Amino acid sequence: MRYMTAGESHGKGITAILDGMPANLYVDKDEINRELKRRMLGYGRGGRMKIESDEVEIVSGIRGGFTTGAPITLFIKNRDYENWSNIIGADATELGKKTVTKVRPGHADLSGCIKYAQSDARNILERASARETAARVAVGAVCKILLKELGIIIGSHVVEICGVKSGYRYSSVEEIIEKSDESDVRCIDATAAEKMRAAIDIAVKNGDTAGGVVEVVAAGMPVGIGSHTAYDRKLDYIVSGHMMSVQSVKCVEIGLGRGYAERYGSEVHDEIFIKDGAVFRETNNAGGIEGGISNGEDIVVRCTLKPIPTLMKGLRSIDLITREPVKAEPERSDYCATPAGGVVLEAALAFALASAITDTLGGDHIDELKARAEQKRTAENGSR
Amino acid sequence: MRYMTAGESHGKGITAILDGMPANLYVDKDEINRELKRRMLGYGRGGRMKIESDEVEIVSGIRGGFTTGAPITLFIKNRDYENWSNIIGADATELGKKTVTKVRPGHADLSGCIKYAQSDARNILERASARETAARVAVGAVCKILLKELGIIIGSHVVEICGVKSGYRYSSVEEIIEKSDESDVRCIDATAAEKMRAAIDIAVKNGDTAGGVVEVVAAGMPVGIGSHTAYDRKLDYIVSGHMMSVQSVKCVEIGLGRGYAERYGSEVHDEIFIKDGAVFRETNNAGGIEGGISNGEDIVVRCTLKPIPTLMKGLRSIDLITREPVKAEPERSDYCATPAGGVVLEAALAFALASAITDTLGGDHIDELKARAEQKRTAENGSR
Amino acid sequence: MRYMTAGESHGKGITAILDGMPANLYVDKDEINRELKRRMLGYGRGGRMKIESDEVEIVSGIRGGFTTGAPITLFIKNRDYENWSNIIGADATELGKKTVTKVRPGHADLSGCIKYAQSDARNILERASARETAARVAVGAVCKILLKELGIIIGSHVVEICGVKSGYRYSSVEEIIEKSDESDVRCIDATAAEKMRAAIDIAVKNGDTAGGVVEVVAAGMPVGIGSHTAYDRKLDYIVSGHMMSVQSVKCVEIGLGRGYAERYGSEVHDEIFIKDGAVFRETNNAGGIEGGISNGEDIVVRCTLKPIPTLMKGLRSIDLITREPVKAEPERSDYCATPAGGVVLEAALAFALASAITDTLGGDHIDELKARAEQKRTAENGSR
Amino acid sequence: MRYMTAGESHGKGITAILDGMPANLYVDKDEINRELKRRMLGYGRGGRMKIESDEVEIVSGIRGGFTTGAPITLFIKNRDYENWSNIIGADATELGKKTVTKVRPGHADLSGCIKYAQSDARNILERASARETAARVAVGAVCKILLKELGIIIGSHVVEICGVKSGYRYSSVEEIIEKSDESDVRCIDATAAEKMRAAIDIAVKNGDTAGGVVEVVAAGMPVGIGSHTAYDRKLDYIVSGHMMSVQSVKCVEIGLGRGYAERYGSEVHDEIFIKDGAVFRETNNAGGIEGGISNGEDIVVRCTLKPIPTLMKGLRSIDLITREPVKAEPERSDYCATPAGGVVLEAALAFALASAITDTLGGDHIDELKARAEQKRTAENGSR
Repeated sequence: MRYMTAGESHGKGITAILDGMPANLYVDKDEINRELKRRMLGYGRGGRMKIESDEVEIVSGIRGGFTTGAPITLFIKNRDYENWSNIIGADATELGKKTVTKVRPGHADLSGCIKYAQSDARNILERASARETAARVAVGAVCKILLKELGIIIGSHVVEICGVKSGYRYSSVEEIIEKSDESDVRCIDATAAEKMRAAIDIAVKNGDTAGGVVEVVAAGMPVGIGSHTAYDRKLDYIVSGHMMSVQSVKCVEIGLGRGYAERYGSEVHDEIFIKDGAVFRETNNAGGIEGGISNGEDIVVRCTLKPIPTLMKGLRSIDLITREPVKAEPERSDYCATPAGGVVLEAALAFALASAITDTLGGDHIDELKARAEQKRTAENGSR
Repeated sequence: MRYMTAGESHGKGITAILDGMPANLYVDKDEINRELKRRMLGYGRGGRMKIESDEVEIVSGIRGGFTTGAPITLFIKNRDYENWSNIIGADATELGKKTVTKVRPGHADLSGCIKYAQSDARNILERASARETAARVAVGAVCKILLKELGIIIGSHVVEICGVKSGYRYSSVEEIIEKSDESDVRCIDATAAEKMRAAIDIAVKNGDTAGGVVEVVAAGMPVGIGSHTAYDRKLDYIVSGHMMSVQSVKCVEIGLGRGYAERYGSEVHDEIFIKDGAVFRETNNAGGIEGGISNGEDIVVRCTLKPIPTLMKGLRSIDLITREPVKAEPERSDYCATPAGGVVLEAALAFALASAITDTLGGDHIDELKARAEQKRTAENGSR
Repeated sequence: MRYMTAGESHGKGITAILDGMPANLYVDKDEINRELKRRMLGYGRGGRMKIESDEVEIVSGIRGGFTTGAPITLFIKNRDYENWSNIIGADATELGKKTVTKVRPGHADLSGCIKYAQSDARNILERASARETAARVAVGAVCKILLKELGIIIGSHVVEICGVKSGYRYSSVEEIIEKSDESDVRCIDATAAEKMRAAIDIAVKNGDTAGGVVEVVAAGMPVGIGSHTAYDRKLDYIVSGHMMSVQSVKCVEIGLGRGYAERYGSEVHDEIFIKDGAVFRETNNAGGIEGGISNGEDIVVRCTLKPIPTLMKGLRSIDLITREPVKAEPERSDYCATPAGGVVLEAALAFALASAITDTLGGDHIDELKARAEQKRTAENGSR
Repeated sequence: MRYMTAGESHGKGITAILDGMPANLYVDKDEINRELKRRMLGYGRGGRMKIESDEVEIVSGIRGGFTTGAPITLFIKNRDYENWSNIIGADATELGKKTVTKVRPGHADLSGCIKYAQSDARNILERASARETAARVAVGAVCKILLKELGIIIGSHVVEICGVKSGYRYSSVEEIIEKSDESDVRCIDATAAEKMRAAIDIAVKNGDTAGGVVEVVAAGMPVGIGSHTAYDRKLDYIVSGHMMSVQSVKCVEIGLGRGYAERYGSEVHDEIFIKDGAVFRETNNAGGIEGGISNGEDIVVRCTLKPIPTLMKGLRSIDLITREPVKAEPERSDYCATPAGGVVLEAALAFALASAITDTLGGDHIDELKARAEQKRTAENGSR
């Protein structure tokens, strides 16, 4: 399975092509739209979100609701393109408008202009924008539908915003899914949520921004996805790249993650038990991956998102043309994207897992894949 | 650039094939051996290290000291293979010896036996073993030689072991390189180093193990490596996969990493300044990567290594055959691999960067690549 | 450089995402449309071509005519989608219409239905259709624009149709480009062209189809693209895959190709000469590739296209549902696609070469790439 | 599945790493050696073959005869390395010996020296040499063992040498396997074989070389391998690259190949019949691939090998250093490699098919893969 995305923040729209989906999977478009809507919510969003009532257009690969095995094209229109077409479009003539030369620290603006020999950072930021995550969410939504058929569900919740930590420890992914979206900061610990909102309020007041940490969890994975045999077939290799590539993410933790550095081995490794023939663990510090292979426990990944680097108060920077010190351009942006970031990271994990599963199991159509996943789920160690 | 590794812990040896190195690079074999030696040191190593006085054999791709553009084969012999040949070799007949059925939590043992239908976890652990990192260090050593020609150097130091944190903040990679290896825990803060050793001593005494955190830093990167345009061309996507795939790593942080969640945007973004025409930043929280592109600052990556899951005291587990509760097999192992882990992670970063650089710059031979890197290093934003 | 295509023959349209184009390349949309138009011409086309007055929509990656380094989305609308939307669309409800169960030999119909567990071959043929080549032509057109900037031009002409052979031997690619499109069978030998038309007429009369051979040539390649060092970096590996994957192609020849089997080595190898310091060859049987590397001579590839397997007269086959012998479905189709096939194969070669060039040279923007290509073009062997 | 090869013609040896083999496959080393031996035979071989009594060393991935899922390292020692070590080795000091500056037309010599900035073509030709095919044959031998378990067998025979055509049309792959190796030109038509030998004798007498055509056939493929949905997932895309990348190959034909250009569609397409519920075809012009998907018929690929470009009589060329016209270096070589080429091409096809099969079916261990191949073999079209 593979996918590519394309499209600019103020261009016609965002396109994704997703290749390798098994045939005969029923894809409910409303499910994709529901995920796109989830991506737009959250406390501390800027003006952009108000104009982004995204809806997916399925351009190919699905007929009468079912996949055919052909590549799926997902298109999400940018609603304000009409105002931008002559500035940003392929045939645009007003390239001198909306130029960005006061490059924003923390973004690709400056490095991008150097790499690609540009003098207008608009040519960089339009693509670097987190607007691209709309495509990733749409792709992830289709992957979630596939995973659900295989008995795998994914949820996320916010565990930290600007230093405020959630006290919630999850007991089941169902619970996460049920409860996190009830909170506008997507934090299940109500008291912490209150403080998070307060921290965001301060950011809003000061023209500042706030980052945070999201925990993403997948339940129902069969044992044996990924492999210990080659560094780039390890499930954690695959997962970490997809998560780290989401805009703003600067830290990826599997399971206990950073916490592994603080305790002795005997305190953190997940011991293995057996009862009535059933193998189980009582803890899951490994986050469902041992030796690069899924072990059947929940996949647990925590990602830290930096505060969005576009500040209304303006960071000190330079102007590309005048080479003078300036305040960086304040493009319209959010104050805190962490709650919505969780939705994007669910999508990133969904693709990573769906892709790793089909790499391991193949599967031309959904019945075939379901049967193989079931076999894998019930497999015991071999007799050789 | 790409590489594959192969080989088992007690097999004939470990092989790597590294493809895509520019021609005419002088590769000093002693440099590779020096890195292999560094990998074997560190406080808290087990018996294995004593028999591992690794030396690389260059089987192909280098003639009279210089690369030819052909794939480079690096072979590292396992010194005790003669004792294992009839147990582990391709023609082995004593497969019933040295079997491992008391699967070790935290390793690939159990999941690997299920995935690959094995009843002897030896068939899994021999490949899952961190012995494989010898190949990665050899590959990384060649990459380091390339990077050095391009003005890029890499160092690492231990910033935490079992909860003991180093107070050292690096000022230059040269300093890290010079000082970290002077400490047997590879920690530059002498007081912290003392405490780290004490923490490891406790692990040794208790048949336990300790994890930690390593900071790996690369200086001298040109601006413009990686790209913001596609998720899988982002430099952080590339780097994080390589780092996370190193045995025991459970957390990868770029720059400030986890710390981004604790402060407002105005406190953490690296502002941009200009003086006498030269652009610079005073901070480097981004760890040298903005928007998926190198920005010319040091690349800073911090990785958390879990405590090695092979404990002399034995964790609770099951026996694959009897299906009874047992203490897990105590294969010979280390008490703390974090100091040496830094050496492996330097290698992983070296490959990631060398690979990203040649993806961006091409380069059939070293003079060509050097000239292009130099052009890139002095490039300013374009005039379009 | 990489690209993906998506879309069905009667769906909304065909999408391509092309990633890795250098920035600052001027892309004239008319050039793309001109290529799309060339693809639709040729003697012996069926009704489909009449409704296919394709025009490309550039959805992303190009601003005011210039590339930005971002992925380029190219969309080509299917003009009769409105008549098909409720049959073929994502939300279609009339799935029972236009079903195809009388599977056509020579197509993916039967094998596709088995692989993807379908009972309506419509779900296979819509994607397997050569309609997909519209996207490949659009992608190739952008690649041609890039190549032209680098001094590389590509042309093609028909050398055989249904046993009628062209007597034309090309002297320059310019000549091919100039003359081949003047003929509606794209054959430069006028007498042969006459006979080809007659052969096609017979096919039309009999409800039959005709295949042929196309020669595709690229002039201006720098020396040193591709590599002898790894099987999958050989330029002929790369080129042959792209050519063979074009619908109907069953044979790919580089240079003298099949003819190499008929003569002794001394008769066919291209001897090397030098005059006034300039190295040259008087023949080009190698087709510009020696040892997997471009040698500076024209790249010459000949591809055989089978007769289109959709025959008005109907081939003997089976019905998927009734399991009875039937005549295969006569979907609307062409009588001879070889002339247009040359246009598609030019596009396939353009991508293969552009991709191999940027793999070797890198190049973030067009000036950088041009300078590197120029260096490569004037390079002599080294002094090591 | 993937593999890399490395090693020079006169270096220590040739290494291959093959990754992705299912576990629990019994690999008989004698089978690999038997294939290596087949590669060395044939009428018209030069002196090199006499010193090449190759034997494989299995360095990793196989224990007691069985695969473990870990990457397999195959090493084939170069028997005359001791005489070359100080000329070609990593530590060689006599780099001035055995230099090649009289570059040979038809080889990578000249283009390689330009690309990689070399002045001694030895640094190119050592890797470009067909010696590398020893590794490919070893890899292919392992793939053949896998395929055999899945009921797939591969054979080849020579259909043309230097214009002499075999009259043999195969009826079964078993027959090819049985009969072709009985002939020292691997031609099953005894009369043609006689003439082929005569043609080779002329080449030997004149210090010349002869090329030819090989037909490679695989029987037993399940339906549904490859895909029509994406150009680079088509089975013919995959197969053609692997075949074309074999040294000397300049033409790849699938099924009727070039012959498709000569007849009408109604004469060449393989009609589909059904009898007692069983679907079958009476012809196989498609060579087992329709629309990029295997259709269950034999996979038939014909490859043309050019005459080896190293001629004892010497071709006209230049000297890299003096820039004077010279006769090209006559490195030791064969007069006709086509018979042995068939063995290499069997290996290339074996990898291509094994790889495509595991891409489609997954399969961590051989029982799993066998069961899935069997399901696929008996699958009918779906009911959706």
